[in-house]
Amino acid sequence: MSVLVVGSVALDTVETPFGKVDDAIGGSATFFSAAASYFTDVNVVAVVGEDFPHDQIEFLKQRHVNFDGLVTKSGKTFRWGGKYDFDLNQRETLFTHLNVFEAFDPVLPDHYKNTPFLFLANIQPDLQLKVLQKMNRPKLVVLDTMNFWIERTLDSLKRVLKQIDILIVNDSEVRQLAETSNLFAGTKKIQQMGPKVLVIKKGEHGALLVNDGNYFWAPAFPLEELQDPTGAGDTFAGGFVGYLAKVDDYSNKNLRKAVIYGSTLASFCVEKFSLEKLKNLSRKEIKDRFQQFKNMMKV
Amino acid sequence: MSVLVVGSVALDTVETPFGKVDDAIGGSATFFSAAASYFTDVNVVAVVGEDFPHDQIEFLKQRHVNFDGLVTKSGKTFRWGGKYDFDLNQRETLFTHLNVFEAFDPVLPDHYKNTPFLFLANIQPDLQLKVLQKMNRPKLVVLDTMNFWIERTLDSLKRVLKQIDILIVNDSEVRQLAETSNLFAGTKKIQQMGPKVLVIKKGEHGALLVNDGNYFWAPAFPLEELQDPTGAGDTFAGGFVGYLAKVDDYSNKNLRKAVIYGSTLASFCVEKFSLEKLKNLSRKEIKDRFQQFKNMMKV
Repeated sequence: MSVLVVGSVALDTVETPFGKVDDAIGGSATFFSAAASYFTDVNVVAVVGEDFPHDQIEFLKQRHVNFDGLVTKSGKTFRWGGKYDFDLNQRETLFTHLNVFEAFDPVLPDHYKNTPFLFLANIQPDLQLKVLQKMNRPKLVVLDTMNFWIERTLDSLKRVLKQIDILIVNDSEVRQLAETSNLFAGTKKIQQMGPKVLVIKKGEHGALLVNDGNYFWAPAFPLEELQDPTGAGDTFAGGFVGYLAKVDDYSNKNLRKAVIYGSTLASFCVEKFSLEKLKNLSRKEIKDRFQQFKNMMKV
Repeated sequence: MSVLVVGSVALDTVETPFGKVDDAIGGSATFFSAAASYFTDVNVVAVVGEDFPHDQIEFLKQRHVNFDGLVTKSGKTFRWGGKYDFDLNQRETLFTHLNVFEAFDPVLPDHYKNTPFLFLANIQPDLQLKVLQKMNRPKLVVLDTMNFWIERTLDSLKRVLKQIDILIVNDSEVRQLAETSNLFAGTKKIQQMGPKVLVIKKGEHGALLVNDGNYFWAPAFPLEELQDPTGAGDTFAGGFVGYLAKVDDYSNKNLRKAVIYGSTLASFCVEKFSLEKLKNLSRKEIKDRFQQFKNMMKV
């Protein structure tokens, strides 16, 4: 089964203690596609400017990522600049130039409208809802959001939450959205807002899956060297949704496996800058790391 | 196999959003014993003042906790007062009256000296080493410490670390002791200081076991209501060491099970104030929760 993703395609300038990249390929739709395409076909809805280096996403096209929904507008591509210190959990945004992304109005090619899996990456909630409404209701709708939208467009966010199946957020966003300090009480409140399943990303502490009252704790991979955490969340989502689309079954068991595939892909992502590590993973590398994750949970 | 613990026996005054207790039984040796005694016999080395209400630890004696090494000194018992806000991960110390604990000089009754398992609770590192040296080398030595000793008595701490088998600390203490922001690089540095096994407590994020290059991630129990986190760490240690002493085998598999038993007991501890919940657990309650932990890791 194929997946549609709507989100950003961007050029990132990132500095960490381990190096620097300028105008490297980034954006939520890009990281998502790079990960999901190891499992299934992907349809991208996004916007870039006339300066976008299309040759750099050629490898994604070869992995069955369809860019018919990638619109080129006059102007420049969305650019983001950030800096990480040795504690790679903390980042400083140096600049955000929305450019053509500021007026992003997602356009769905007709042949996208029956895509059975939908990932609404972290964009303005009204736009997320608009995309969902343009489609024939997908079998599974997964949404990402962030503190920025919880603070500024809460009503819009609540409207789209009612329509989705799975919410992917981090632990501080759960507390903020549910207005409680207790994470587990928070998940229950959010489930009442719409999504029956929550996937809570906790960075170096792993991820937590909540499916009704059923909890699953996934580890983080014990990497001693990370080069660049940018895109890890979207890569996680790509592995997670990509796997579910591949097996077309969201039983509790497969949701758990999907969380581990998401964690697996995210752990590769952060090992190098930009999409570098996600370009050429072998099936064996992914399978081996998946197994290493499982071994860290065996008792 | 029996366990010897050296640590504090205290009277705690604790306030949380869910209630308050005055001069309730506390202290590292007490919480540890309450948990470990579900698995094995415990020998306590500690000091109290003349005001100590011995009747309140009567239930521990009935569970084969031996207090021959509990010395009563003229003066008052160690008292600690603390307050927790809704975020129970953060606490404020209101007062620390060391009283008789200030001049604590551990005395080991002769019949304690061959105890095969030793837990050195969080006290001054020179005292920890002194206790270890007074014993015939136990089969397994487990140590807890904290930022206070890392900052003030690092050389003493390093001396005792050379002599132990397992270190139990939290994640910020790993970073502080190893002087690195990367937790996994930190564990390797600490293993070179002595302990081959590390157990890293991460509060609401669970616990991490590091046995050479082998990682095990244990969940935290998803409690929606916690009354009082005081003593959770020592209770964890009690379940962990108690289980290892019971099975007298520290294979990787049993270390993993021990971490889950530690987590299980700690999850009960925080449900009520002081030792209230640890007084009367049934074997079935412990076994059921152990199983719930396992279910949260199944993939």
